Amino acid sequence: MIAGSSLDSVLLTDLYQLTMLQGYFDRRMEKTAVFEFFVRKLPPKRNFFIAAGLEQALAFLENLRFTPEELDWISSQRSFHPEFVRYLEKLRFSGDVHAMLEGTVFFPNEPILRVTAPLPQAQLVESRLINLIHFQTLIASKAVRSVLISPNKLLVDFGLRRAHGAEAGLLAARASYLVGFAGSATVLAALRFGVPVYGTMAHSFIQAHDDEAVAFDHFARSLPQNVILLIDTYDTEAAAEKVVQLAPKLERDAIKIKGVRLDSGDLADHAFKVRRILDDGGLQDVTIFASGSVDEYVLARLEEQRAPIDGFGIGTHMDTSADAPYLDCAYKLVEYDGMARRKRSEGKVLWPGRKQVFRRYDDTERMIGDVLSLEGDRLEGEQLIRPVMKQGRRLDDPLSLRGARERTLRELKRLPDALKSLDAAPPYSVTVSEAIQDLARRVDARQAQSERQDRQSGKGP
Amino acid sequence: MIAGSSLDSVLLTDLYQLTMLQGYFDRRMEKTAVFEFFVRKLPPKRNFFIAAGLEQALAFLENLRFTPEELDWISSQRSFHPEFVRYLEKLRFSGDVHAMLEGTVFFPNEPILRVTAPLPQAQLVESRLINLIHFQTLIASKAVRSVLISPNKLLVDFGLRRAHGAEAGLLAARASYLVGFAGSATVLAALRFGVPVYGTMAHSFIQAHDDEAVAFDHFARSLPQNVILLIDTYDTEAAAEKVVQLAPKLERDAIKIKGVRLDSGDLADHAFKVRRILDDGGLQDVTIFASGSVDEYVLARLEEQRAPIDGFGIGTHMDTSADAPYLDCAYKLVEYDGMARRKRSEGKVLWPGRKQVFRRYDDTERMIGDVLSLEGDRLEGEQLIRPVMKQGRRLDDPLSLRGARERTLRELKRLPDALKSLDAAPPYSVTVSEAIQDLARRVDARQAQSERQDRQSGKGP
Repeated sequence: MIAGSSLDSVLLTDLYQLTMLQGYFDRRMEKTAVFEFFVRKLPPKRNFFIAAGLEQALAFLENLRFTPEELDWISSQRSFHPEFVRYLEKLRFSGDVHAMLEGTVFFPNEPILRVTAPLPQAQLVESRLINLIHFQTLIASKAVRSVLISPNKLLVDFGLRRAHGAEAGLLAARASYLVGFAGSATVLAALRFGVPVYGTMAHSFIQAHDDEAVAFDHFARSLPQNVILLIDTYDTEAAAEKVVQLAPKLERDAIKIKGVRLDSGDLADHAFKVRRILDDGGLQDVTIFASGSVDEYVLARLEEQRAPIDGFGIGTHMDTSADAPYLDCAYKLVEYDGMARRKRSEGKVLWPGRKQVFRRYDDTERMIGDVLSLEGDRLEGEQLIRPVMKQGRRLDDPLSLRGARERTLRELKRLPDALKSLDAAPPYSVTVSEAIQDLARRVDARQAQSERQDRQSGKGP
Repeated sequence: MIAGSSLDSVLLTDLYQLTMLQGYFDRRMEKTAVFEFFVRKLPPKRNFFIAAGLEQALAFLENLRFTPEELDWISSQRSFHPEFVRYLEKLRFSGDVHAMLEGTVFFPNEPILRVTAPLPQAQLVESRLINLIHFQTLIASKAVRSVLISPNKLLVDFGLRRAHGAEAGLLAARASYLVGFAGSATVLAALRFGVPVYGTMAHSFIQAHDDEAVAFDHFARSLPQNVILLIDTYDTEAAAEKVVQLAPKLERDAIKIKGVRLDSGDLADHAFKVRRILDDGGLQDVTIFASGSVDEYVLARLEEQRAPIDGFGIGTHMDTSADAPYLDCAYKLVEYDGMARRKRSEGKVLWPGRKQVFRRYDDTERMIGDVLSLEGDRLEGEQLIRPVMKQGRRLDDPLSLRGARERTLRELKRLPDALKSLDAAPPYSVTVSEAIQDLARRVDARQAQSERQDRQSGKGP
C-alpha cells in the first residue's frame, strides 16, 4: 500500500486500461485513435444537458504521468513486463481534444468531447475522463433546473456534506455556479475556483447557548457584516419575534440584520408568518432564506404559492442529482488508423467517425434543431464542437468558469420554452445526417465481410 | 484562487463553520461539546445499514490543521478578524471519538460516531465528517445487498467512471470490498487500501483490431496470466465460437483462457448459450463474467433463472447507490458544557445526551433487538459504541480494512433473515430507553422555562 498516492494519480483508473495498454505496446499499436464521449439518453423528466467538466478534464490530460511509486507498484504485479513499465515512465498525453465548451446545451448521442491521440494515450485516459465529465455534466444539468424555475432568487449550493466524497462536493459547487447559482457554502470552491461563498449558522450554535436570543446577539456582534439568523431551532415564529426585538438594539451599534433562515417544516407557511412578523416589526429589508430538502420541485411549489422567500440553500438533491444520480454515458472508439469503427452490441448503438454537431436557430435566436454529422461536412448552423487542446497543450483559454457561466445564461435564452419544463417535453430535433448513416453502413459491411472470411477460412489467429 | 490547495484541505467545509467558530472564539465558548452522527431513516426497500468510513474520518481528525495559504485566504475575508485567524493557526483536533466499528450493522437513530471535544473543534469538523461517513456508509449499505443475493459469486466493483468524482470512485472500491466484494477494477484502491484489483479488456481493444479473433489472440499473449475475453462487441455467440477455436492454439503455448465477459443484451440468455458453446468445445473451466447495468435486482433475477454466470462487475448502480443516492443523516449537538441538548425543529426529532446502543442476540446468535440508551447505563447486550480516538490520537487500530471485512461477514450471519430481503421487511426492534426519554423531557422543560422567562422579562440580550 502506498499511502502517499493522491487522488490525482494516473492509477485512478480501471485495471483494464493497463492490461490493454500492454497489449497495444506488445503489438506496437500506436496509430491515431479517435474516441468520443456522449450521453446515450435523457433521464426521465429531463429535456437537455449542460456540458461541464472540460476544464478539469484538460488539466488531467496535461498533467498525465506515472510517478516512480506508481511505476514500482505496476512492476510488482506479475502481469506487467519491464519494457512496458519503462514505456509507461515516458508516457505523456500528446493528443488533440475537440469539445463543446462548458455551459453548452446538448442532447443524447451528441459527442461533447473528442480525443484524437495515439491509441494507448486515448485509451488510458478513458476512466478518469468519463469520471470528470460525467459528474459535472450531471450536476450542471440538474442544477440548471432550479435556475430555470427561480431565476430571480439567490440560489446557493449547500450540498457538500452529502455529496459523494470530497471531489463531488467541490465540483458540485463549481458546476452549479457554472449554470447560474449565486455561489456555494463550500469554502474550498472559493479558493479553487473563485466561486462566491455564503454561510450563516447551524442549529448547534443556537443550542450551545442557553438562550436563543443571546445566541442571535452573539452571532450578530461576531459577524456584523453578514447577520443571517437561523430561526427554526425551537419555535420559528417565536424566534422571528426575538429577531424583531433584537434589531433596534443591534442598530444602536450600527449592526444590521440581513436575513433569517428557515430549515424545516412547511417552508411556505413559515415564510408567510415570518414575513408578517418581520414587516410588522419594521424589518421589511430583512430577507428570508430557506433550506432543507429543497430541489426544483419544491421551488416550483413555492413559486406557485408566491412564498415570500428571497433565496434558497439547495443541497443533497442537487449534489447527488437525486432523481437521476447518473447519466448513461460512454467514451467510445469511433476511428483507428484512419478507419471509422463502431461497436454493435445489443441495445447500445454507436455512430462511427469523427462527428460535428450543427445547430440551427430561428429569427428570434431560439434553437430549432441539430444535425449530427461528420467533421468536415458543410452544413448550415453553428458548429458546436471546437478544438480546445492541440498536441497535449490547451489552446487559449475560452474556458474560464466565469465565461462558461455567461455562456450558460446565453444558452438558456436560446432554449425552446418547452424544454424548460420540469417534465419530459416532446424531444428536441436531432437528426443523424445521411453522411453518418452511409459511413455506418460501410463500417458494418466491412465488419460483416471480415466475419465471413473468418468463417470460410476457419481462420483463427 | 489558490490552485495548490488539495482536497484534504480543512477548508473543504461549509463557510458557516468558520463564522460560527469566530462566534465561539469571541465568547470563549470552548467547553466540551458532544456531537453524534446518525441516520434518521431507512431509504425505501432498505432494512439496515452498514457502518463505514470511520478510518478516513479518524485520519481527517488527526491531520486537521490550517495551512499558511488557507489562513491567508481567511485573513483576506473581511468577516474574520486577525486574533481569530491566529487562533485557527494553532487549532488541532484534541478530542475523543467513540464509534461503531466499520462493518457493524446499524439502524435509524442509532449514533455510529460520537465526537467529544472543545466546541469549536467538534463544530469545525462537521461538514467533512458527514461527507466521509455518509458516503461510505451509503455504498457499504448498498453493496451488501448484492453480497446477500449472490454470496458465492465473484463480485467486483466496476463503478469508477460514473462514481461522483475521484474520491467517490476510490472509496466505493473500499466500501464494497469492506462488505464482501472480491475486489475492484480501480487500480488506486489496490495501492491505497490493498483491495484486490480485477480487469479484463474494453470493446475498444477489439475494435482497434480489424479482426476480433486476432484481438483475442493478442490479448491472451500479452496478459497470459489473466485471459478474460470480452465477447459482446459484435456477436456474442460467434465470439464464443472463436474462443473455442483459439483455446487449443493458446494451450500449445501453455496459455489458458480463464474466462469470457458479457456486457450487453439479455445476460441470462447469452450466458446459457455461451456456456453451452464453451462446454461443447471442451472449455468447462472457462468462467463467464457479466457486467452492464448489474445491481442486486438483476442479480436476484439471474439467480432465480440459475444463469450460469460465475462473477459480476457491478458499477454505476452501486457506486452511486442509484435507488437511494443519499441517506438522511445528521451530526447533531447532544451535549454542551455538561448539559444535554436537543433541537426540536418540526419533523426532525433528536434524542439528547451521550448514547450507547445495546444489542441482544438469541441462542443462535441472531440479533433480536437493540436498545438506544445513555452511556453508562447498565443494560443487557453488546455495547456497540466503543472508544476509537483519545485526545486526538487513534487508539490501537481495530479498524484495518481486512478486519472490517471479516466483521461484516460475521454481522451478516447474525442478521435476521427477514432483513436480508431486497424489499422492506417489518422493522427491526430499536427501543428508546426510559433513561433517554426522561432526559429529553428534562431538556425540553428547561428550554420551555427559558422561553417563558424570556417572554416574561421581555428579556432580549
